[in-house]
Amino acid sequence: MNYCSSCGNSVTLRIPEGDDRERYVCVSCEAIHYTNPRVIVGCLPVHEGRVLLCRRAIEPRRDFWTLPAGFMENGETSAAGAARETWEEAEAKAVDLQLYRIFDVPHISQIYMFYRCGIEGGAFGAGPESVESALFEEAQIPWDEIAFPVVYKALKEYFDDRRKGEYPVRVSSIERLRRPG
Amino acid sequence: MNYCSSCGNSVTLRIPEGDDRERYVCVSCEAIHYTNPRVIVGCLPVHEGRVLLCRRAIEPRRDFWTLPAGFMENGETSAAGAARETWEEAEAKAVDLQLYRIFDVPHISQIYMFYRCGIEGGAFGAGPESVESALFEEAQIPWDEIAFPVVYKALKEYFDDRRKGEYPVRVSSIERLRRPG
Repeated sequence: MNYCSSCGNSVTLRIPEGDDRERYVCVSCEAIHYTNPRVIVGCLPVHEGRVLLCRRAIEPRRDFWTLPAGFMENGETSAAGAARETWEEAEAKAVDLQLYRIFDVPHISQIYMFYRCGIEGGAFGAGPESVESALFEEAQIPWDEIAFPVVYKALKEYFDDRRKGEYPVRVSSIERLRRPG
Repeated sequence: MNYCSSCGNSVTLRIPEGDDRERYVCVSCEAIHYTNPRVIVGCLPVHEGRVLLCRRAIEPRRDFWTLPAGFMENGETSAAGAARETWEEAEAKAVDLQLYRIFDVPHISQIYMFYRCGIEGGAFGAGPESVESALFEEAQIPWDEIAFPVVYKALKEYFDDRRKGEYPVRVSSIERLRRPG
């Protein structure tokens, strides 16, 4: 950030009065520009016991497999955003959404929210950000080609939980992005 | 938003190529400025069966009672943010945090995350944004003086859950802010 989005003058990094951390503050109008973590919402869509994954058509992690997910938009709920992303990336209509997994990723100021869901009619395709989508049995999951640690971990836990027949909502943090495996 | 925070030139609202909603786009450097929902993190602190509430020293809802909560900051986890807010607003050290309640509030593009927690040593005070803090038995909760619908709802559910001895993680949306009662 170099300029005040309100008045167009320069900003400087300083601790505003009554605050305890640096913010971008306008040198002219004194507007304080806060930046906050962003929420990524997504689904873990399941149809007849198989999980829907998308192979990414874009960077980062192009050609690797992921769950449909993306930035939550203003004016929507987290579940609506997760369903929207599932439509946009996998052309699948998410139904019966149940909150399942939350990941804090503080070093990149992100928080992930994954919902388990069904797929209406079992129909899916590939949106512009996906090369292809496919349904996978547990034994067929391409574990070495999963795009992101949060996706790898959510999938592993899902299959473990399924064996137990219980899907508790969990939250934990991932301190640093590492490739699985 | 009037000016590009990157180059200082004017921005215009338009739908970028490949997108499906309006964004602020710089007319000069073409930077796209996304805005996303903000996360509010807080605690429902309990000590010896009583819940800690803070009476607000600031607007909105000055003098009304609330749970300690505030905007999640970059670089922290949701639990760390909830504990930080509990310290800042109630001078209480949150321990044993358990994710409890998520509220989507789409019309103001916010998402709330409340953690149940204990209070180290049962000690608390009042930070600069609070007039006072106090521990309340269920029968003493000032239901007509609760600051926000999300707080009212979280408290009601907490006491119901406590009677059942189960605290499932719930998510639901509040479509419009209304005063309780």
